[in-house]
Amino acid sequence: MRIIVDAMGGDNAPQAPVEGALRAVRELGVEVLLTGRPAEIGACLAKLGHTAPPPGVEIAPASQVIEMEDNPARAFKDKPDASMTVGLRLLKEGRGEAFVSAGSTGALLSAATLLIKRIRGIRRAALAPVVPNARGNMVLIDCGATAEGTPEYLLQFAFMGAYYARRFLGIENPRVGLLNIGTEPSKGMELQKAAHALLTQAHEAGRIRFVGNIEGREAISQGAADVLVTDGFTGNIFLKTVEGAASLFSHALKDMLLGSTKNKLAALLLKNSIGAFKKRFDANEVGGTALLGISQPVIKAHGSSNAYAFFNAIRQAQVVAQADIVGDIAANVAHMRLEPGEKEG
Amino acid sequence: MRIIVDAMGGDNAPQAPVEGALRAVRELGVEVLLTGRPAEIGACLAKLGHTAPPPGVEIAPASQVIEMEDNPARAFKDKPDASMTVGLRLLKEGRGEAFVSAGSTGALLSAATLLIKRIRGIRRAALAPVVPNARGNMVLIDCGATAEGTPEYLLQFAFMGAYYARRFLGIENPRVGLLNIGTEPSKGMELQKAAHALLTQAHEAGRIRFVGNIEGREAISQGAADVLVTDGFTGNIFLKTVEGAASLFSHALKDMLLGSTKNKLAALLLKNSIGAFKKRFDANEVGGTALLGISQPVIKAHGSSNAYAFFNAIRQAQVVAQADIVGDIAANVAHMRLEPGEKEG
Repeated sequence: MRIIVDAMGGDNAPQAPVEGALRAVRELGVEVLLTGRPAEIGACLAKLGHTAPPPGVEIAPASQVIEMEDNPARAFKDKPDASMTVGLRLLKEGRGEAFVSAGSTGALLSAATLLIKRIRGIRRAALAPVVPNARGNMVLIDCGATAEGTPEYLLQFAFMGAYYARRFLGIENPRVGLLNIGTEPSKGMELQKAAHALLTQAHEAGRIRFVGNIEGREAISQGAADVLVTDGFTGNIFLKTVEGAASLFSHALKDMLLGSTKNKLAALLLKNSIGAFKKRFDANEVGGTALLGISQPVIKAHGSSNAYAFFNAIRQAQVVAQADIVGDIAANVAHMRLEPGEKEG
Repeated sequence: MRIIVDAMGGDNAPQAPVEGALRAVRELGVEVLLTGRPAEIGACLAKLGHTAPPPGVEIAPASQVIEMEDNPARAFKDKPDASMTVGLRLLKEGRGEAFVSAGSTGALLSAATLLIKRIRGIRRAALAPVVPNARGNMVLIDCGATAEGTPEYLLQFAFMGAYYARRFLGIENPRVGLLNIGTEPSKGMELQKAAHALLTQAHEAGRIRFVGNIEGREAISQGAADVLVTDGFTGNIFLKTVEGAASLFSHALKDMLLGSTKNKLAALLLKNSIGAFKKRFDANEVGGTALLGISQPVIKAHGSSNAYAFFNAIRQAQVVAQADIVGDIAANVAHMRLEPGEKEG
């Protein structure tokens, strides 16, 4: 299997993607096709002791780079020779089985939707990050690919998230919860009430394991769902709030451990455990965020990804491609559509 | 000043509210009027060594208790002699300057709105909890009093939150931010775009210090605003997500500190610091959540409040009443209304 990697995207490009790609080739049995400026990629390879791309690594030249300042909706048209644009075109041409980029989320979403296209019948692509909770990890879907939601989008997100959780998290029959402000079916706004009804129908038809409305607190502190379904606005608020809280706590913890000589001694005793503690909440461990609903596997790596995060994102792309999650979604899309005459308002 | 306290509301009633009230009388120079079943309150007083209410403490008999199972919208009508209903009626009659209850949030909101009424011109009351961030604390408004939002509600929440932050948190010129999924004015849904425009106008007129859209991450990890304005649905998701993350994190920390003999030794060294660390994130420290927009001061104490939390909620009620935040809001309500012909969509 060959994974196409945008070598120019992210805060630590091109060194981090190149280094992560080389490790993936060594350890995962994949080939990697790097898109970007050959001279810059070559310099990164040289730093790692390679005068030419090692076996399993190829370079696809791309002279431009999509920057955060570029208009996300138009970036791939304005920069047809950008590393992201070239990578997606190669994916479409079948030169690889999946694409990984740490570039602009908005640009990747627009470019993937317009170049690769959505799976037929899927209304919107969704960003599905993996978020830690008390039981391990859950899939959040959507977290901002589309701000506005409709009940039908949420129904589709639920199915897509469930297939992804099964294949990527290895949860055979994932519990799907609807993020809401209370557990009763009457809670929330019109969107949540209508989505609750659609998800209940899908559950009763045996097509999904819907466990009802879940509040943000129980989603995290009890791991009450394996798939947390919501509109992109709410999901983005949820994800960023988790990240903010994690940052606040870890800084407070660090301040505490450096606060006195006695505390520094305690920190020494805890050294190994703190490593494991941090690892559990470290986004670099997962890799990236799957862009579900696109007709070929696309993974958005975090903008701040280091080499290890790129390695993990490539592993994630490999799982998504091998497990054929796109095929799962395409084969079941008939159940994710509202019947004629049942269109959302 | 006399504070009316619902002695029957919350998980730890009546012991915790009675104990918190006695401490408030001793330490804060307030009088307290306890509403509830005299025999049960008397038994709590006896446990604290009092055969009769001590000076500064009075009991207003109320035979019923509003339970979580009661319909929130009708509870105060169905139970006219409930401790909450009686307390609000006494507040209206001027028998005290503020009311504190740890009973059902929905019932308190409905009863306060219908018995005490909103401030003239205020469209919706709002729940305004204090949430920790990297700079100390911020006011979140609304967090679920009304799920749906309009731009005018959010404008009013911004003013009310700013007056409250000034008086309760002591921040002279509080920075007001709009919770959103990006910082550009074009981000979010129609609600956020329209609210951004109204808040910008109010800022330009010198009436509020609007610092623009704030993402959940920066709100917490950088303390980017002193007042975080949002609709009740989004605010509730934000608050519960913070609580869930705090719970997950503190359990993981506890597991780590009990994980080995070496770690237990470290925990001993850290003992005092961990107390301070927990205190910083402990909801009991703040007291309760102000119900802003009601024409007399009403404080919702957390359902799980202990005696110390009730003491703090009474202190908070005292500040809100002494500072006359209701007067601040009423005096400025003309600036919080959309002009005729500018009504929200």
